Amino acid sequence: MLPAAAFSWYYGGGDLFSLLATFLLCLISGGVVFYFTRDEIELRMREGFAVVVFGWTLMAAFGALPFVLSRAIPSYTDAFFETMSGFSTTGASILNNVEALPHGLLFWRSLTHWIGGMGIIVLSLAILPYLGIGGMQLYKAEVPGPIPDKLSPRIKETAKILWGVYLLISALETVLLMFGGMSLFDALCHTFGTVATGGFSTRNLSIAAFDSLYIEIVVMVFMVLAGTNFSLHYRVLKGDWKAYFRDREFLFYIKLLVFFTLVLTPIVFFSTTPHLGKALRSSVFQVISIVTTTGFCTDDFELWAEGGQLIILLLMFVGGCAASTGGSVKIIRIMLLFKHSVNEIKKVLHPNAYLPVRLGGRVVSEEVVTNILAFFLLYLLIFVFGTVAMALLGLDLITAISSVAATLGNVGPGLASVGPMNNYAEIPSVGKWLLSFFMMLGRLELYTVIVVLLPDFWER
Amino acid sequence: MLPAAAFSWYYGGGDLFSLLATFLLCLISGGVVFYFTRDEIELRMREGFAVVVFGWTLMAAFGALPFVLSRAIPSYTDAFFETMSGFSTTGASILNNVEALPHGLLFWRSLTHWIGGMGIIVLSLAILPYLGIGGMQLYKAEVPGPIPDKLSPRIKETAKILWGVYLLISALETVLLMFGGMSLFDALCHTFGTVATGGFSTRNLSIAAFDSLYIEIVVMVFMVLAGTNFSLHYRVLKGDWKAYFRDREFLFYIKLLVFFTLVLTPIVFFSTTPHLGKALRSSVFQVISIVTTTGFCTDDFELWAEGGQLIILLLMFVGGCAASTGGSVKIIRIMLLFKHSVNEIKKVLHPNAYLPVRLGGRVVSEEVVTNILAFFLLYLLIFVFGTVAMALLGLDLITAISSVAATLGNVGPGLASVGPMNNYAEIPSVGKWLLSFFMMLGRLELYTVIVVLLPDFWER
Repeated sequence: MLPAAAFSWYYGGGDLFSLLATFLLCLISGGVVFYFTRDEIELRMREGFAVVVFGWTLMAAFGALPFVLSRAIPSYTDAFFETMSGFSTTGASILNNVEALPHGLLFWRSLTHWIGGMGIIVLSLAILPYLGIGGMQLYKAEVPGPIPDKLSPRIKETAKILWGVYLLISALETVLLMFGGMSLFDALCHTFGTVATGGFSTRNLSIAAFDSLYIEIVVMVFMVLAGTNFSLHYRVLKGDWKAYFRDREFLFYIKLLVFFTLVLTPIVFFSTTPHLGKALRSSVFQVISIVTTTGFCTDDFELWAEGGQLIILLLMFVGGCAASTGGSVKIIRIMLLFKHSVNEIKKVLHPNAYLPVRLGGRVVSEEVVTNILAFFLLYLLIFVFGTVAMALLGLDLITAISSVAATLGNVGPGLASVGPMNNYAEIPSVGKWLLSFFMMLGRLELYTVIVVLLPDFWER
Repeated sequence: MLPAAAFSWYYGGGDLFSLLATFLLCLISGGVVFYFTRDEIELRMREGFAVVVFGWTLMAAFGALPFVLSRAIPSYTDAFFETMSGFSTTGASILNNVEALPHGLLFWRSLTHWIGGMGIIVLSLAILPYLGIGGMQLYKAEVPGPIPDKLSPRIKETAKILWGVYLLISALETVLLMFGGMSLFDALCHTFGTVATGGFSTRNLSIAAFDSLYIEIVVMVFMVLAGTNFSLHYRVLKGDWKAYFRDREFLFYIKLLVFFTLVLTPIVFFSTTPHLGKALRSSVFQVISIVTTTGFCTDDFELWAEGGQLIILLLMFVGGCAASTGGSVKIIRIMLLFKHSVNEIKKVLHPNAYLPVRLGGRVVSEEVVTNILAFFLLYLLIFVFGTVAMALLGLDLITAISSVAATLGNVGPGLASVGPMNNYAEIPSVGKWLLSFFMMLGRLELYTVIVVLLPDFWER
């Protein structure tokens, strides 16, 4: 919170006290916890789950305090929603007027994205591959860094490498955005929103406020990079320039972005923007923003024809590559689900043929395919349960469907009452808590959270 | 078509010629085909697929003719939609005023349901279990009748037994409906609509037109029976009275009906029907009608609160038991998908435990579980593709979503523009053909149709 306090001091705005007070509260309560747990013990799997889930919850619970203390967001429910939206890199907001927030809080709000993104790349590359959750064991061989036997030293080494990459990409985007005329403050905030695929902006109109093709291109490029497996970036930085183009998931990801841009452009052209260049510019930005689950906007896709809105809604179920900061189901799972479906159709015609699912020539084990199918099923189940719950709270169907899709997938904006030009302010309190929970659930790959909720977990 | 012609002759109405002409056309063209293919050959798997898919298509293509010839439905697109809706036991209609149809055609329309239902129970118990499609191999041991090696004699024997059961249930419902004051004509038509889980009625208000609790109860009981595995009925008729209550799928089906009735009753009570008895009566009827994919209505569920509508929409993805006349995903698959998900969560906590999916104590093979997962995935994929296609044709999102859910699931009524008090008349022509295709696709368990569309299928 100190960098945010520095901006608050520089720009003024009356939020300095709230940031410093929360900083001190965290320092003291954290110090007490640290003192009583200072003996180093080896973490086992269960403690790992607990640390991740309670860590994320506490971060949001404490991170919400500056908003409440400064009266910028008087309701704790709203402040918690906003902060969980930050740490989960969702970018869904309850603020009607973002620009009214003082600079210190705006910076803190964007910084939660960046911190959340740091957590996620380590979680997905250093921890999940070893737990066999949702098919992430596929990435065991790709974890950068040495592979010592014990969990803690490995996490430390991997985290150092990945954070180095993350920092480098962030620094690069900040500089490029400043070249485009942004202040250091705006450039940092939008960099945090981009590289974490978060989506919080300092402007009410999001990226559209800058009305600059250059800035849109920079943001698009970095959204694509943020939605890419970070171990690929590491390999490229180590000199293996072709690493991107050998990776099947990355290639599928790029093809998918191109395909849906080409599908959406005519829809945007015929429904709202009768200028081909502008329709293309709007389509490509929105497709990248939704697929990477960032949620920045340059256009109000709610005005598009129904078919275009539906495609946006469906893209919320895609997500970036595995081990990126992108949320939702993830490209690799979509790919393997698709390959599995095609295989099963072939098997009907050739019942005795050996038809394993392959990824770039290598056979993917049955276990991984089953795990991925189960992950997808669980994702749908939570989506369906959530949608019914939101509809029972009185939301119209499209708002209910899209609010759950957009929070569970860590996208941010949905459709109808939670569309890109609206926000989550009008959702009833119970709904805000529920959606906050979905943000964490989606961000932590479902199982991490659900396992902690099982009675089994708490048995000795 | 002759029984329909008999009703036409008895009631008058000017549709006699169209029915007899089509009868003759079918007789002649069928005779020609029969003459050239009269040598008995053993059917292999591929011919089986082709017979089923082209058989269903031709039935709808010829069955539509009486509507067009009599000018009752002037457009062939509309007539084909209505007839495919009949043979696929969907019950989606393009007619604004059903009661304006002459009796002969009304009878023919309902009879298509009954014929379609006959086809389905044989397909699902005598053919699919041997093709290993969508997990139907689970039912290999339950096929009634002898199990000779060759396909044709087995199908004949099984068909005879199942049709005996079907006929008996139909006769029983007809008699019971006549006790309730229905004419023989109405009783037969509504029996066809019930036992085939079709949903065509002779009245604009569907079952609500009779305003009789007795008739509603009879229809509900027979909808539940029609949504039950027909091999269970056979075993019960053979004296094994407890067969129903030993069957896990049947028990789950009943629990599901009870659960959703209890969930919907308060929603109906608070949103439209402030009378507890009436709310319960309306809920139980609609839940049974949608879950069994019949589609008869006694209430306009579009007026219910959003949460209630969403539950109706979700129930369209359930369907009756396997080997019933019900459509959609089917209870057994929903059950096993759910058990598989729970298992996978447990596996995260106990990575080394042996946790197979069980059904009533017996282990379900990995292969069956994988097949069922793939079936569900394919179902969703087609649903999503269809919804996007319908939205691109200009339908609003709720109409697009529910029209595909209701036709692919062979339910009939959807929401919004295709809601229970509306119909499919206003859908653009391309949309009607697409929805007709989805009706067949859903009815023939997806794979049967998709396989025939593959280039592989046509290779020697």
